Amino acid sequence: MSKRMEHDLIGEREIDNEFYYGVQTARAQDNFHITGVTLSQFPTFIISLAQVKKACALANYNLKLLEENKKNAICEACDEIINGSLHEHFVVDVIQGGAGTSTNMNANEVIANRALEILGHEKGEYDFLHPNNDVNKSQSTNDAYPTAFRIALFEKLYELVDSMKVLRKSCMKKADEFKDVIKMGRTQLQDAVPMTLGQEFHTYVTMIDEDIERLIGAQQLVREMNLGATAIGTGINSHPEYAHEVEQRLQEVTGRPFVTAKDLVEATQDTGAYVQISGVLKRVAIKISKICNDLRLLSSGPRTGINEINLPAMQPGSSIMPGKVNPVIPEVVNQVAFQVIGADVTITMASEGGQLQLNVFEPVIAYNLFNSINMMKNAFETLSEKCVDGITANEEHCKNLVLNSIGLVTALNPYIGYENSTNVAKEALESGRSVYDIVLEKQLLTQSELEEIIRPENMIKPRIK
Amino acid sequence: MSKRMEHDLIGEREIDNEFYYGVQTARAQDNFHITGVTLSQFPTFIISLAQVKKACALANYNLKLLEENKKNAICEACDEIINGSLHEHFVVDVIQGGAGTSTNMNANEVIANRALEILGHEKGEYDFLHPNNDVNKSQSTNDAYPTAFRIALFEKLYELVDSMKVLRKSCMKKADEFKDVIKMGRTQLQDAVPMTLGQEFHTYVTMIDEDIERLIGAQQLVREMNLGATAIGTGINSHPEYAHEVEQRLQEVTGRPFVTAKDLVEATQDTGAYVQISGVLKRVAIKISKICNDLRLLSSGPRTGINEINLPAMQPGSSIMPGKVNPVIPEVVNQVAFQVIGADVTITMASEGGQLQLNVFEPVIAYNLFNSINMMKNAFETLSEKCVDGITANEEHCKNLVLNSIGLVTALNPYIGYENSTNVAKEALESGRSVYDIVLEKQLLTQSELEEIIRPENMIKPRIK
Amino acid sequence: MSKRMEHDLIGEREIDNEFYYGVQTARAQDNFHITGVTLSQFPTFIISLAQVKKACALANYNLKLLEENKKNAICEACDEIINGSLHEHFVVDVIQGGAGTSTNMNANEVIANRALEILGHEKGEYDFLHPNNDVNKSQSTNDAYPTAFRIALFEKLYELVDSMKVLRKSCMKKADEFKDVIKMGRTQLQDAVPMTLGQEFHTYVTMIDEDIERLIGAQQLVREMNLGATAIGTGINSHPEYAHEVEQRLQEVTGRPFVTAKDLVEATQDTGAYVQISGVLKRVAIKISKICNDLRLLSSGPRTGINEINLPAMQPGSSIMPGKVNPVIPEVVNQVAFQVIGADVTITMASEGGQLQLNVFEPVIAYNLFNSINMMKNAFETLSEKCVDGITANEEHCKNLVLNSIGLVTALNPYIGYENSTNVAKEALESGRSVYDIVLEKQLLTQSELEEIIRPENMIKPRIK
Amino acid sequence: MSKRMEHDLIGEREIDNEFYYGVQTARAQDNFHITGVTLSQFPTFIISLAQVKKACALANYNLKLLEENKKNAICEACDEIINGSLHEHFVVDVIQGGAGTSTNMNANEVIANRALEILGHEKGEYDFLHPNNDVNKSQSTNDAYPTAFRIALFEKLYELVDSMKVLRKSCMKKADEFKDVIKMGRTQLQDAVPMTLGQEFHTYVTMIDEDIERLIGAQQLVREMNLGATAIGTGINSHPEYAHEVEQRLQEVTGRPFVTAKDLVEATQDTGAYVQISGVLKRVAIKISKICNDLRLLSSGPRTGINEINLPAMQPGSSIMPGKVNPVIPEVVNQVAFQVIGADVTITMASEGGQLQLNVFEPVIAYNLFNSINMMKNAFETLSEKCVDGITANEEHCKNLVLNSIGLVTALNPYIGYENSTNVAKEALESGRSVYDIVLEKQLLTQSELEEIIRPENMIKPRIK
Repeated sequence: MSKRMEHDLIGEREIDNEFYYGVQTARAQDNFHITGVTLSQFPTFIISLAQVKKACALANYNLKLLEENKKNAICEACDEIINGSLHEHFVVDVIQGGAGTSTNMNANEVIANRALEILGHEKGEYDFLHPNNDVNKSQSTNDAYPTAFRIALFEKLYELVDSMKVLRKSCMKKADEFKDVIKMGRTQLQDAVPMTLGQEFHTYVTMIDEDIERLIGAQQLVREMNLGATAIGTGINSHPEYAHEVEQRLQEVTGRPFVTAKDLVEATQDTGAYVQISGVLKRVAIKISKICNDLRLLSSGPRTGINEINLPAMQPGSSIMPGKVNPVIPEVVNQVAFQVIGADVTITMASEGGQLQLNVFEPVIAYNLFNSINMMKNAFETLSEKCVDGITANEEHCKNLVLNSIGLVTALNPYIGYENSTNVAKEALESGRSVYDIVLEKQLLTQSELEEIIRPENMIKPRIK
Repeated sequence: MSKRMEHDLIGEREIDNEFYYGVQTARAQDNFHITGVTLSQFPTFIISLAQVKKACALANYNLKLLEENKKNAICEACDEIINGSLHEHFVVDVIQGGAGTSTNMNANEVIANRALEILGHEKGEYDFLHPNNDVNKSQSTNDAYPTAFRIALFEKLYELVDSMKVLRKSCMKKADEFKDVIKMGRTQLQDAVPMTLGQEFHTYVTMIDEDIERLIGAQQLVREMNLGATAIGTGINSHPEYAHEVEQRLQEVTGRPFVTAKDLVEATQDTGAYVQISGVLKRVAIKISKICNDLRLLSSGPRTGINEINLPAMQPGSSIMPGKVNPVIPEVVNQVAFQVIGADVTITMASEGGQLQLNVFEPVIAYNLFNSINMMKNAFETLSEKCVDGITANEEHCKNLVLNSIGLVTALNPYIGYENSTNVAKEALESGRSVYDIVLEKQLLTQSELEEIIRPENMIKPRIK
Repeated sequence: MSKRMEHDLIGEREIDNEFYYGVQTARAQDNFHITGVTLSQFPTFIISLAQVKKACALANYNLKLLEENKKNAICEACDEIINGSLHEHFVVDVIQGGAGTSTNMNANEVIANRALEILGHEKGEYDFLHPNNDVNKSQSTNDAYPTAFRIALFEKLYELVDSMKVLRKSCMKKADEFKDVIKMGRTQLQDAVPMTLGQEFHTYVTMIDEDIERLIGAQQLVREMNLGATAIGTGINSHPEYAHEVEQRLQEVTGRPFVTAKDLVEATQDTGAYVQISGVLKRVAIKISKICNDLRLLSSGPRTGINEINLPAMQPGSSIMPGKVNPVIPEVVNQVAFQVIGADVTITMASEGGQLQLNVFEPVIAYNLFNSINMMKNAFETLSEKCVDGITANEEHCKNLVLNSIGLVTALNPYIGYENSTNVAKEALESGRSVYDIVLEKQLLTQSELEEIIRPENMIKPRIK
Repeated sequence: MSKRMEHDLIGEREIDNEFYYGVQTARAQDNFHITGVTLSQFPTFIISLAQVKKACALANYNLKLLEENKKNAICEACDEIINGSLHEHFVVDVIQGGAGTSTNMNANEVIANRALEILGHEKGEYDFLHPNNDVNKSQSTNDAYPTAFRIALFEKLYELVDSMKVLRKSCMKKADEFKDVIKMGRTQLQDAVPMTLGQEFHTYVTMIDEDIERLIGAQQLVREMNLGATAIGTGINSHPEYAHEVEQRLQEVTGRPFVTAKDLVEATQDTGAYVQISGVLKRVAIKISKICNDLRLLSSGPRTGINEINLPAMQPGSSIMPGKVNPVIPEVVNQVAFQVIGADVTITMASEGGQLQLNVFEPVIAYNLFNSINMMKNAFETLSEKCVDGITANEEHCKNLVLNSIGLVTALNPYIGYENSTNVAKEALESGRSVYDIVLEKQLLTQSELEEIIRPENMIKPRIK
């Protein structure tokens, strides 16, 4: 295999000619054997790196800081990456020291070497087009990396929201399907008052709707980016019109409304938007975990649990207990939620650890946010298709539980008072008898009054006494 | 001391006549010896409980569900509490089982007994006015408690924001005062490029501004409340017009734009707003902790650290090292931040643990949110008054660090190229000599060119090459 | 009220003569308005501070570094504090900057002023006996504070273990009481195979036993203390024999086997023991939370849940639902667990934030560990006395659930094979019929074979086919 | 490609004949698209699964529950896996619902099909040797999966400890190398008193030593396993002598001292050992993060920071700032620590979420523990080889910082008293003059007294006044 020799501050290093990356990427490969997970597993991020580099090249060209042929070659190389090529040359471990410098240089080097080829040169002939002087022109890792991160995050959040809409639709369908299934509501796991199974599933719809709103809200925060900041936000080595110019070009290249932060020194060190997004992802995780906990409770049994609903059987549940079917889909979603909640703590520590003009821990923040979003997206789709869509109700059982319950007395409260109701409840509990019988026996209400009060449709909404 | 006998589901229990609370509060006192912290330490919450009870009494009266004399007595009792009386009768431990039932009953009983006195009766004569049947009419703990919690949270967030504005002002004053102090910027704790100390303090201003915006945004979420939900959100035992009526009355009583949730079943079990607020508090905590870390770094020394700024000496720093003055104020603020971050995990678990129609863990959520807000408010005011306001700059030292730094070569980059600059930097580092001397010696630039480039005012913003 | 004037590095400050503390404590009061919780709420910690000061005075005297009369007066003052006096003069906020200097000086000043009185002088006449030169002799905050913290922690862990033994005993009693109650075991909330309720409660016994072992193990770590380290562990300003001498005296004064760390520089900056203890407290919290979750599940109902056991009714459960009794004690214990788990994150961040020769965040670590231990102790005692002791079993219901279950087929597995068993289970589930009937109908076993296999005592332990 | 048809509770499903896994594994592949990370990436875990299956086959054979030819075939298949074959057939996503059933069945199916081949049959001819009836005989997922997990964890912890010993050795070498480098100690980032750089690095040695001890301690907890528990710990369907027999066989197969838990019902639902190990991993993470924070502080500069040590340059530090070298290795290790700390929260939630007789969330616990251990192992080796080994000291600079410091006055404390020392310190600070000059000017000590006191070797350990 042919090799080329490259050099940097540290010295010389041989690079296989098949690789588009160069010496600095190779250093990073040597240095960071941490997760074994490389950038190439995060294609959206690679695309957004290329979008940043393209926007910068265009801005530099417009300000006469970059020759036309270089600009064209860089843009063509970027377009190839945006269209899915060369991703396998993004080889750096996602968790890396250096605040993303290795990721940024991986992009600079791959783009430079591809652009050199486009210009008819060999890889490594950096005199004709240089990873730092040309591809990275007017940039620093400290603005290019977080901007690319933000673009990718913006796109990934749309994907997540789409998956939530799928689940929302599944839940809404069940809310409609079960709108007449009367069942017992429970607070503190104790029998409370009646409701419909449709109302139960509709709460999931509302939860998801609210979560989508929160995500869209948080997503807006990453529209603010810091291209033009260069090293620390002062814009050193950049043209006075560059920040504005690159903002325009980035909007064109991405088709998204990214805007330049007003205080670039602040924006360069700030990780608040990531923390906010992580906080909202955690919120979404908590909610979906609660939904899954409920689905597991409501389907518990089949004979010794609540058994109000049936989850579809996805796989045999046990290697020893024949016929056992377990709620494996909610269970896996719960675990995704725990993973997202743990990631939030990682991101918290990484964010708090920033010092002075930079937060050097953005790579671990990016890794965790991308992982959380990917896992949740998978979880939402899985939950929708492999669980919610197939849920059926045990309607008769639901109704019998209501009629047999002591919680009926709550509905009698406005008619016979809190203390009478309490006594009826106590007697029913102790004797094992029904509320219905005791109320009649005690002549607290006539049979027709009683039946009117406990008609299911009268117990699931407000009514005039 | 005179006593009265009260009774409940559990049986009879004697209550000292001096106490306005009744049997159910006494049960809760017996049951919950956990933190030793009682409701009475959270006056805003007590006031909001009284506001809820007043609004409900008014709504019940308007719907002809409550007699006028009872309504008047309840409202008068509530007003007394709103004005600061009777708080010492709110004796329940803030962390309690029962989803806040004990807190709600504490309010119901204190209000009922005070209202009884107003009506000319003795405490405990519940035949004339009953804690459950009258004060709690059309309510459940499950709507009254979270609504009161949300009202209190809404108010406390205003207090927090006010304290942040105080700190913002202090930082802005320093940003102005230090706007001409040239200093070295640092990334990854390594010398980077120049900036002003004013820019450094201005980042704090921007951070706080953004945090205030996020808090105000999150605050809006608790405007949505669930009065009218009663037990589980179906509105059982409430009048069909009650939910709308009580919304109007609550707006009047509080003077705040609280609105009824559209899906009351969802709203009754949902804790998403608390999670969102906690997530934003965590974000604020992370940022303030980062600011404090920086203040400690920048004031490190006085002789063997960075020593760019001086924090005001607040107390002797050491019991053994004479003359040592420590950054005690930032240190205490860091600890508050850690406390808030830990509280977020507590709230996460409490929220995830909700089951079916209710989250029974709201008391621990309330306890942590109120504590976090109180501590942060104290921390912001302390940081402002006892630290930031008294910060002074070591201007000469700041400037000398810049002139002596290797980071100057970055400014030369556009003039002599990345590789020449790298070589100059390397030689300066190895020889201990200055960048200035080496550049001239190597004839990379003339002296006048060089001096123009490294004029401080030219290095702290973009410029045309 | 009479006043005295004191002064320190910052300047002069008037102190009310009634107070035993002096100027440095007063500075700390001015500086730290954070939690409102003062040292005086942690008597064990105050006592351990006095024990440290007494041990140091004795060591200094033995090494001829302190005059006999001063030694005697200091020891007498310390003994008074150890016996419970003067605690109200420990007024500093528990969360404070300065790595505990304010707490240490609060102790030094109270002891000095009380010792001055014992010697016949006035408070504040520090020429006769000085808080720093005499009470704090051979010490720094950096060794005195953590040593006192460790002593207090050591004692508090004994208290916690005692409370766990109480709960263990309650659970053991129930394990015995319910040893013949056959019930259905559940995995993944789905019916699994039979067991006894005694086995269920015995798992709690085993869990608590293991947790006690872990706590005792972790407790040993705080036996290692760093007296003699002085400022940073080098022992500057201390007598070469001092570290050994004070170790002996501390053992005498406390009656506990505290030993000097071998590497005092490390010991002075290290917070690993706190992290370890917090990790074990978290483990205990997780386990007790799981137990409480189970108690709530098993007692769910009474009519629409599992209802295998009854928790004692401690208070009315609802302000709207008459007769409702909620599992308020397990619920409050869950919340304590969440609090402890959140505290672990706070301690994690505080520990990670230590820099170079000291961790300045020990106060927030101490606050959280003491709070966690106190709350858990209260929770264990409450759970034992107000819940477990009163639990009763619904024996008949438990048995019926077993006989009606599909999980019975697991016991048939070795006799009719996994696939036959699966088919029986499937048919039972779909038809609503019993496993018993289907097996006989299909002639898979004779009636006598079947009855032998499913005799409860045969299903709850291994047996030869 | 040839196919075979398999069937289970859910129905029939075609399997490519090239695959050793069967229908249940295929179901799991369909169901769990979550992380994209498969079991095959955790070879230690696959090996331990095979060890469990082998031990069980041996035990079953010895108790005459399994025919000799089946036993031999199963053992041979297991040995192949133990020796590294067939790992690519472990295809299930590591995060899965079902408490590990899919992982267990993946192992059962691969082993069964390989054993069938060994016996001369085709894959899928389960009449001759069945994944459940034979490979899984006397087992449940609920005992086989956690036992395999524990075996793997036991081995991985040895690997982690080995990597820590490497780092320990590197630190010890530096502690020796720098034992005479006098430098300033710092507390609260403020100049404190002198020490040696050797002492600084020795603290790292001590920290690592203690962490190794804690890990070894925690490792012992996973020696306790629950084979013989079968479904819920009651041992249903197992031979009375089986638990003892399989314990012996497992010891032989693994060569490790695994023992059967005494309370198998408890052991089957308990995750305390994982929580404990995660807590200790977190402790290790905190410590290593603190070490890395310190290395970054001590090497800050080169011109505007502390600059006491130089980290080896591993890669160019900046895409814009020439000559900048960043502490990339400590930075990546910090991020690993944050990841481990976040994983602890995930494990906490997973552990707390266990219900009744089983914790269904072990897969996410396993995933996080294995990831944390792998990343930390990589981080320790990287830190050792690519950072600590190459650290050099700026000895002259270290010494000058001491001589120029104000912290020298602490050493004068025993000679001139705390208050005189305070005044000297104050004057030095305000005037910018040296402590040395001021002490002489004020005639507080003679020059020879002063020089004796501040001889470095006298300041870094206790001494007689």
